[in-house]
Amino acid sequence: MPLSMNREVFVTCAVTGSGATQDRSRHVPRSPAEIAASAIDAARAGAAIVHCHVRDPDTGAPSRRLDLYREVTDRIREAEVDVVLNLTAGMGGDIVFGSPEAPFPLNADATDMIGAAERVEHVKQCLPEICTLDCGTMNFAEADYVMTNTPGMLQVMGRMMTALGVRPEIEAFDTGHLWYAKQLVADGVLDAPALVQLCMGVPWGAPDDLNTFMAMVNNVPDDWTFSAFSLGRNQMAYVAAAVLAGGNVRVGLEDNLWLDRGVLASNAQLVERAVTIVETMGARVIGPAEVRAKLGLQKRAPAA
Amino acid sequence: MPLSMNREVFVTCAVTGSGATQDRSRHVPRSPAEIAASAIDAARAGAAIVHCHVRDPDTGAPSRRLDLYREVTDRIREAEVDVVLNLTAGMGGDIVFGSPEAPFPLNADATDMIGAAERVEHVKQCLPEICTLDCGTMNFAEADYVMTNTPGMLQVMGRMMTALGVRPEIEAFDTGHLWYAKQLVADGVLDAPALVQLCMGVPWGAPDDLNTFMAMVNNVPDDWTFSAFSLGRNQMAYVAAAVLAGGNVRVGLEDNLWLDRGVLASNAQLVERAVTIVETMGARVIGPAEVRAKLGLQKRAPAA
Amino acid sequence: MPLSMNREVFVTCAVTGSGATQDRSRHVPRSPAEIAASAIDAARAGAAIVHCHVRDPDTGAPSRRLDLYREVTDRIREAEVDVVLNLTAGMGGDIVFGSPEAPFPLNADATDMIGAAERVEHVKQCLPEICTLDCGTMNFAEADYVMTNTPGMLQVMGRMMTALGVRPEIEAFDTGHLWYAKQLVADGVLDAPALVQLCMGVPWGAPDDLNTFMAMVNNVPDDWTFSAFSLGRNQMAYVAAAVLAGGNVRVGLEDNLWLDRGVLASNAQLVERAVTIVETMGARVIGPAEVRAKLGLQKRAPAA
Amino acid sequence: MPLSMNREVFVTCAVTGSGATQDRSRHVPRSPAEIAASAIDAARAGAAIVHCHVRDPDTGAPSRRLDLYREVTDRIREAEVDVVLNLTAGMGGDIVFGSPEAPFPLNADATDMIGAAERVEHVKQCLPEICTLDCGTMNFAEADYVMTNTPGMLQVMGRMMTALGVRPEIEAFDTGHLWYAKQLVADGVLDAPALVQLCMGVPWGAPDDLNTFMAMVNNVPDDWTFSAFSLGRNQMAYVAAAVLAGGNVRVGLEDNLWLDRGVLASNAQLVERAVTIVETMGARVIGPAEVRAKLGLQKRAPAA
Ligand SMILES: [Zn+2]
Ligand SMILES: [Zn+2]
Ligand SMILES: [Zn+2]
Ligand SMILES: [Zn+2]
Repeated sequence: MPLSMNREVFVTCAVTGSGATQDRSRHVPRSPAEIAASAIDAARAGAAIVHCHVRDPDTGAPSRRLDLYREVTDRIREAEVDVVLNLTAGMGGDIVFGSPEAPFPLNADATDMIGAAERVEHVKQCLPEICTLDCGTMNFAEADYVMTNTPGMLQVMGRMMTALGVRPEIEAFDTGHLWYAKQLVADGVLDAPALVQLCMGVPWGAPDDLNTFMAMVNNVPDDWTFSAFSLGRNQMAYVAAAVLAGGNVRVGLEDNLWLDRGVLASNAQLVERAVTIVETMGARVIGPAEVRAKLGLQKRAPAA
Repeated sequence: MPLSMNREVFVTCAVTGSGATQDRSRHVPRSPAEIAASAIDAARAGAAIVHCHVRDPDTGAPSRRLDLYREVTDRIREAEVDVVLNLTAGMGGDIVFGSPEAPFPLNADATDMIGAAERVEHVKQCLPEICTLDCGTMNFAEADYVMTNTPGMLQVMGRMMTALGVRPEIEAFDTGHLWYAKQLVADGVLDAPALVQLCMGVPWGAPDDLNTFMAMVNNVPDDWTFSAFSLGRNQMAYVAAAVLAGGNVRVGLEDNLWLDRGVLASNAQLVERAVTIVETMGARVIGPAEVRAKLGLQKRAPAA
Repeated sequence: MPLSMNREVFVTCAVTGSGATQDRSRHVPRSPAEIAASAIDAARAGAAIVHCHVRDPDTGAPSRRLDLYREVTDRIREAEVDVVLNLTAGMGGDIVFGSPEAPFPLNADATDMIGAAERVEHVKQCLPEICTLDCGTMNFAEADYVMTNTPGMLQVMGRMMTALGVRPEIEAFDTGHLWYAKQLVADGVLDAPALVQLCMGVPWGAPDDLNTFMAMVNNVPDDWTFSAFSLGRNQMAYVAAAVLAGGNVRVGLEDNLWLDRGVLASNAQLVERAVTIVETMGARVIGPAEVRAKLGLQKRAPAA
Repeated sequence: MPLSMNREVFVTCAVTGSGATQDRSRHVPRSPAEIAASAIDAARAGAAIVHCHVRDPDTGAPSRRLDLYREVTDRIREAEVDVVLNLTAGMGGDIVFGSPEAPFPLNADATDMIGAAERVEHVKQCLPEICTLDCGTMNFAEADYVMTNTPGMLQVMGRMMTALGVRPEIEAFDTGHLWYAKQLVADGVLDAPALVQLCMGVPWGAPDDLNTFMAMVNNVPDDWTFSAFSLGRNQMAYVAAAVLAGGNVRVGLEDNLWLDRGVLASNAQLVERAVTIVETMGARVIGPAEVRAKLGLQKRAPAA
């Protein structure tokens, strides 16, 4: 039967994102030391992959400083617990307009649009097994903001990642992003079979109803590997949905801060919950070595 | 958003079915005392509804003896634990043919086709809150067997249930059964909004892939209440699927004997697992009083 | 892209069925001569395949007389116009019960349940390229009737068809029938890749909404060939739906009597309409030789 | 049955777009006189609505000059043939980056980002019955281009359109755009029930496979009116798909230049084809008066 349940599931923990969440929960890690510690806790709880952004250690603001990425990488590589490292490459594609009546000049403080090589520099230096590739341009739940990743940018960034031997995890926030991901593979920019994360319920991308989710799942090529998550309160529901549809799961504080109503979560607690759901459904949670074998990933030391 | 997750979920435990499972697990209850005890255990574990068949206490063979239904009813009604009672009305629609080369004469020992009044007599006497109505005719995974419920039969049985004030739970084993259920409501045989159980993965009815499941869910009228289950190894996966799609859940030994590979389950253990999934997903499990209020059910003593 | 439109479409004309339609339209052919003539007209209008039942020439009642099948076959084989012949093997699986209160004794006049060899005898004698295999048991829009094709019967009939070198066209009236068809292939009863007809909107099988249709299409294995139709007023709409979903089309008086409101259709007129839709959508209608090549069919003379 | 076929269908002709198509077909109208003439021809062929952009009469380049919009409006309003006028409000949201390695400075010649009031000024002056609202931000099949419509911009433009009494036709190019459209209605920016165009197969928005299409259709609120189209070679196929799914249709040179392989189309020819499909499927094509009644539109003279 197509779309049969995945019985060997990997869990990704999205440890800390780029949203302004650092002041909304004391559990959101800020410094490289905190991020690595939270990632390691998540790995102990069952996450095979940790997906990390970095933040300014003082303010908690999202950052793309190379030294912070490098410190996170070193700390995770040196930990006793093995885990697959996934670094974001999503930073540096942010435009914020002046206002609806005066889009230009851009809001210069909030805008951060850089070139492809600079967006991938930390990947080149840290050599994680995986880095993300946000496969499109879209609105978010902010009045004047656009997440910007043009086809031209994605072609260049994708070729760089492929050349580095770092596996891109395609982030598809809507059906068109998945369509373009297939084009990147058809163009030889990305290797097949690819790895894709279906990002559901991120306003204003694909909503997280099951019809939309299944439309995306039905469009993932048979030989690709997919994972899925939903933002916010449906995070645990999508653990179940993803497994049912044949995929893998992602949880973590990047996507959801809450364990229960009024109870803030840690990354490890979210991973524990996900593991409970996966195992209670009758599937097995696989570890980092199995993930590397399955996806053909290389664990490497950062560039000297 | 349509098809949003159900946050107030009831769990039905299908305590013992009509399949030849009694010799495959020591946990499958046979006598009315065993069935009631297993049902009560399931209720303690979180089931708001118990769905019961009866069996010959000696052989374990499926039965439709009125005294057995009555004893199960009395024992459940007298228990300390409150629970909504759902009795099957599926018995008495069984045809078994001679063989592919000689369909007639029927296999008289295995065939059990009776009239509508007789099929509903135990419902009339026991007055459970709910009884099932298998809403169609189909093959099962047996060479010469047909589960037989003609439109004429369903009209007559449905009218009887409605007249008795017992809520039919429509069992839809495929998309056509759900279609006919809507016809029964349109014809005034059943009251709207109706209650429907989507029975997935029962060979040879609807397979339990998510596309087929969503096609059925999309066809449930907005004001109806639905529950869903899948047979066998996907039972727990469908707990998650049902909740995600906005429905309620059913587990129990009628549908699945196994807790884990090689580990036989009790009804209470299956309910516990389902409750874990539902709660870990962030929903609340509701009890029998809330179910009666939600569905407009009446708890009544059996007929004197 | 998956599920892309079919650009090389074959049209099947279902020339005359087994329903009581013969008195509702003068165009429904009855005698072998009429059936063959209507089939040839349909072929001239663009049908690559003609699907035929036979009827009593005098009363128009559905029949399974061997001489009638043979005469239809001979006339079609001898016609100037080439066309792929598809004979029904659906006759002989009809049960009609006494009534809801007294299912037995069966309505002997209306019941027609015969053995597998007898159901396939006309196929053996006529050796059409294709014969149908109704892949399940279900209710129709008649109070006491059941179309009966048990798994055991389907196994035996399927093996006979395969041995004869006649390609079965699996008729799937609901999602469970398609599931069992895949089991027949898995069991080696039918050869892969198989040919399947998705029969939509036949009460009480799968309804013809697009969600249900897509659930079925998504479950057709990638290497199978499918066709689809809908009963009654949506017949032409499903010509478009089938092509869009990557399939082939079926029209004809077995499924629909009307050309427009109040205007009775001929088979040729229905085929003409279907061809118009297919071509206007930008696809090409293929002929019998291309169909034989595509499906690996053999055109043979009837057995001597 | 949900999602039943629409039996009273309106056809929109998208007469000329903003793409660089003017040099690829002599039929793409450029001057206001040509655009109006082509629109009127389309109306005669059966289009109830004409959706118009304007172009520089000399170069054919897309334009947003007020005098051109006004001349198109006047010519269409003065024509003998009645038709509902739909003007684009999509112009003025175009960003083109420098290159992947140097996104800034923007390509100033190609970038055209203006304020909300300016984007709606021609609507205020021309007072068409309908104007479009492109409900999101996305990539197209151009390396460095982004179609930009932020949430803040859509809020302001939407309120202006509502205040003017001009009905916005929401253009949803992906599932997230439809989601945000519902938010605009929930926020009171747009009136309910809304009118939405599902734009399928526009790279890199939603692909035009039927699963994705049905996910979008399933998310259109029951009381909204929708239309749908697909870009390019599937244009006519989507006429059928839209009607089947309960919607209305759009064809025209904005979306597709070809009638057949190697044969360039006129707008009237494309409308004729669409009408043929709709009518052959058994539906009726409705005219401008019926559309105004159905959608509550006002036909008004342009502002003095
Ligand atoms: Zn991230
Ligand atoms: Zn039962
Ligand atoms: Zn037939
Ligand atoms: Zn336009």
